Parts: sequence; C-alpha cells; structure tokens
Amino acid sequence: MTNDDRALTDAIRSALNQQGFLHHMGASVDEVVRGQVVISVQKRPELLQQHGFFHGGVIAFLVDNATTAAAGTVIDRATQTCLTAEYKLNIVAPALGDRLACTASVVKPGRRLTIVEAKVHSHTGDKAKLVAVALATIANVERADVAA
Amino acid sequence: MTNDDRALTDAIRSALNQQGFLHHMGASVDEVVRGQVVISVQKRPELLQQHGFFHGGVIAFLVDNATTAAAGTVIDRATQTCLTAEYKLNIVAPALGDRLACTASVVKPGRRLTIVEAKVHSHTGDKAKLVAVALATIANVERADVAA
Amino acid sequence: MTNDDRALTDAIRSALNQQGFLHHMGASVDEVVRGQVVISVQKRPELLQQHGFFHGGVIAFLVDNATTAAAGTVIDRATQTCLTAEYKLNIVAPALGDRLACTASVVKPGRRLTIVEAKVHSHTGDKAKLVAVALATIANVERADVAA
Amino acid sequence: MTNDDRALTDAIRSALNQQGFLHHMGASVDEVVRGQVVISVQKRPELLQQHGFFHGGVIAFLVDNATTAAAGTVIDRATQTCLTAEYKLNIVAPALGDRLACTASVVKPGRRLTIVEAKVHSHTGDKAKLVAVALATIANVERADVAA
Repeated sequence: MTNDDRALTDAIRSALNQQGFLHHMGASVDEVVRGQVVISVQKRPELLQQHGFFHGGVIAFLVDNATTAAAGTVIDRATQTCLTAEYKLNIVAPALGDRLACTASVVKPGRRLTIVEAKVHSHTGDKAKLVAVALATIANVERADVAA
Repeated sequence: MTNDDRALTDAIRSALNQQGFLHHMGASVDEVVRGQVVISVQKRPELLQQHGFFHGGVIAFLVDNATTAAAGTVIDRATQTCLTAEYKLNIVAPALGDRLACTASVVKPGRRLTIVEAKVHSHTGDKAKLVAVALATIANVERADVAA
Repeated sequence: MTNDDRALTDAIRSALNQQGFLHHMGASVDEVVRGQVVISVQKRPELLQQHGFFHGGVIAFLVDNATTAAAGTVIDRATQTCLTAEYKLNIVAPALGDRLACTASVVKPGRRLTIVEAKVHSHTGDKAKLVAVALATIANVERADVAA
Repeated sequence: MTNDDRALTDAIRSALNQQGFLHHMGASVDEVVRGQVVISVQKRPELLQQHGFFHGGVIAFLVDNATTAAAGTVIDRATQTCLTAEYKLNIVAPALGDRLACTASVVKPGRRLTIVEAKVHSHTGDKAKLVAVALATIANVERADVAA
C-alpha cells in the first residue's frame, strides 16, 4: 500500500465514521481500496424483520454506503465528494446468517457520475451465500456546491 | 372503515410491529388502507449521515417497508405473504427536515408480483419537500413456502 | 400556447425527428408540453415478439425516448442537451393492443439530473391498459461537452 | 457440447428467431450456453439517434432479449417459459462503434424469478468499450398460464 492509498483509505474510513447511522447499525468498514469497499454488520435482533431475516433496510444501508464509498475512492477528493443519485437492488435469497457483508466495485468511473455494482453475501461460519445484487449511480459533486 | 378494512389494517400494523428493525429505527406506521401505506421517522442524530441529512439507508428502509406493506394490503392474507423482490430508488434532494415520510401506493396488483410506487417527503413545520422516488416489485409468496 | 411553448415543442419534435431509429420504429410524437411528452407506435408485425405481444425493446424505446424528451422540456435548450443516464422499467402486463403509448412526466427537474416517471399503456379501440411503468434519470449535458 | 446442450441452444435460437422484432433490428444470436447469451447488432443508420450513437432503444432491445434468453437457459423448458418482469439499465458511455453486443449472465436462478446481469460493449475493429450495464428480473411462467 502506497502513502497515497493509505491516505485515501483513511479519508474514506474517517468520512464513514462521522455517520451517526453507521454506528447505529453497528457496521464495520472492512476494506477500502481504489475501486472497491466492503462494509458489514453482525447479526443482532434489532437488525431483523418479522421472519428473522436481516431487514431489507439493512441490506439497502450496506449497499448505499458501500457503493457511495467505492465511488469516493475514484474521485478527486480535494475538490469533490459523492452523493447517491440512485440505485436498484434485487434481494435474491433470505438474508439469514451471522454476518451480512456488501462488496461494492466501481464498474465505470466518470467525470460526473460513477457506476458501481454491489453484491451482498450472508456468512454463516465459513459459508457465504449471495443474498442481494445492486447497481448504483453515484453523483460526483463539487464540495463547494454541497456546502452552499 | 369496514370491519374487513379494520382487520386488514390491524394485521399489517401487527406484522410491521414484529420487526426489531422498525423499533430500532423509531419508525411509526401512519396509515394503512387498501393499496396505500405511509411510514415515517422523526429526525434523530443516529439516523443521519456526515452532512447532517437523513442517511440513504433510512430512506431505503422506509421505501422497503412501506412498499412491501402496501403490497400486503392487496393479497390474500390468509394464504399469502409478501417479500421484496427488488426496488429502484432515486434520491432527488438532500433529506433535511424534522420528519421523513414514505407514501407507497400499489400501481398494479398481480397474482405473483405486485408493482408499487413510493414517494418520500421531508417535512419541516408544515412544509413538505420531495426527497426520493422509488419503484418496487414485491413477490406474493405462499405462506407454506416461507415456513418450509 | 405561448410563442415560447411553441418554440419548445418545435425544437423537441425536430430533434426527435432527426433520429433514424424513430422512423425505423414508425413512432409518432403525440404531445410535447413543458414537463410532459407522449410518444406512441401502432401495432405492426415487425414490432412484436414470439407470443404476439409488442416486444420489450419497443416498450423500452418508447420509455427511453419519451423520458429524455420530457427532460428536454425543462432544461436551458440554448446551452444544454439531454442524455439518458439510466432507467428502470417494469413490464406489468402483456403488451397487446393496437397502439402502444408512453406518457413521460418530469417528477423533479435538477441542475444536472432530471428525474422522470413514465407509464406505457396499450390501446385497443377506446380501452387503455397499463403495460409498463418506468423511472428514469436523465443527465443534463452542456452542448459544448457533447460536441467535443 | 452435449446433446442436451445442443437441444437447449437450438430451442432458444428458434424461439428468438420467431420474433419479428429481432429481424427488424437485424440482430444476431452469437452465443447460447447454459447461463449465458450474447446478442449483437451491426451499425446501420436506422439504429442511430440524432447524435449518431446507437439509440438507447437498441441497447434496451439487446438487454431485454439477451437477459430473457439467458434466463431461458436455466429453466425447465418443457413446462416453463420466461417473461421480463423488470430491468434497470445504465448507459455509461456513448454507444459509438461498428457493432453493439450484449452479454447476459445469470446471477441467481430461482424457482419463480431469475436474476440476470448484462453488459453491453461497442466494438470498433478489435477494440471493445463498455457502454451499458444492466440488472434484470425475469419471471419463470408456466406455459399453461401464458397460453390461457
């Protein structure tokens, strides 16, 4: 890891850790490299729905956060920041398991929009199962515009 | 409101209130009628992201829950239940404000899939502002299959 | 209709009519007003799939074109043009009927992105049936950037 | 290739070739294997929009057809057929080039819904460029229900 990469990783982790909601969800930022971010949560009763699966809102939280953070690894962080424009998410299996992890990977960086794919797996022991797939559009916004 | 409608409303509210995650988010079920459900959250620090907006995951939670519940108002509840197949969500403005409310309306009921639209507004005093729009596909599942 | 509105309508119709693909599909631009565009096709064997329904690609063509044109009614046409960033489309019923018409309506204009909803109906005699629903994100692009 | 695989390929090609719209677009089915289908079109003036790119409707046609056909490779073709439930499509670059090819790959087969990813590349000489990414939900339908 170069100094540049370490600075990038630190900046993204620091931005994520300023989110009250991240702590409320008990999420951990597991990996930040250029073009890819992994965020996960451990199973806790307050993250489940009535059938005992992780709630769809937890899956969406992971997708939203990981895709935006992944887009944040490929912009000019000195002048820009990232905001979710939109995403689409398929839930493909019940989100059972002890841990839910979202891996978001940049498909296409852009000057104004970055396209990011995500896959969410549930983990039980050393077994992983695909539970959701997503495709997101993240807007690159000038920091001056967000502050305004 | 007929007895049938009251029974429907009660059944949906009861199912929602069995979700640990609903309580964790502090959400309230504001309206349940045939074809439409409104769910909202009040502003609290733990629901925000680093710019002070409601977190995208909170928006998604409302959309996921309200669209699935709205689909639940048009199925045969004796034999079926609803699961989110997929949705797409556009965030169209920063989710500021004191309260965030999602109104989900069935566009097209179906034997196996129900299509539901949702709009999320932020409320500050008596002013409402559109912050997100969504389109969801909800699967009607036989209760016997979920239990299996 | 004001002179401004007539100029807008004419400009949009003219841009659409420069599309080779529009003619290939035999599509007609039925309505252009600020914030809304209607485009339709008549039934022809070459627009169908193997079950005799209008092909999904025809539905998508109408959605793509009508949403982009609707976004084009709310930008500064002197300096900007529109490109489809993404859309999501649900097919909710078989696209039978004599005519297929897409009505696209701007939900939220924006400086850089415009959000547009669309509904596609099939028409048989004087009966209309909903066959598809869509939600699109259209990018406003500076004409100088497209030419470059 | 086993006899089973050859029969599958032949059945899918045959179903696609019954589409009037496929011929109208001049599309060719380049590859059909279990879980993956490639469909492409050559550049022709009638497939372009006013900036000289392949029209978005052409991209959508390829995505719709290839994703449904890919889902068709993993169902029980004796009793079931496939219909597009919905898809979401990001256009990530102008669709220039001599040929436009969509590769659709099954992400998750299911009893009732199959999830399929697609990537569309434009080809100029031996260079390929990503122009669109899609995520689709395809419904598995009993043949008896479609005929009814």
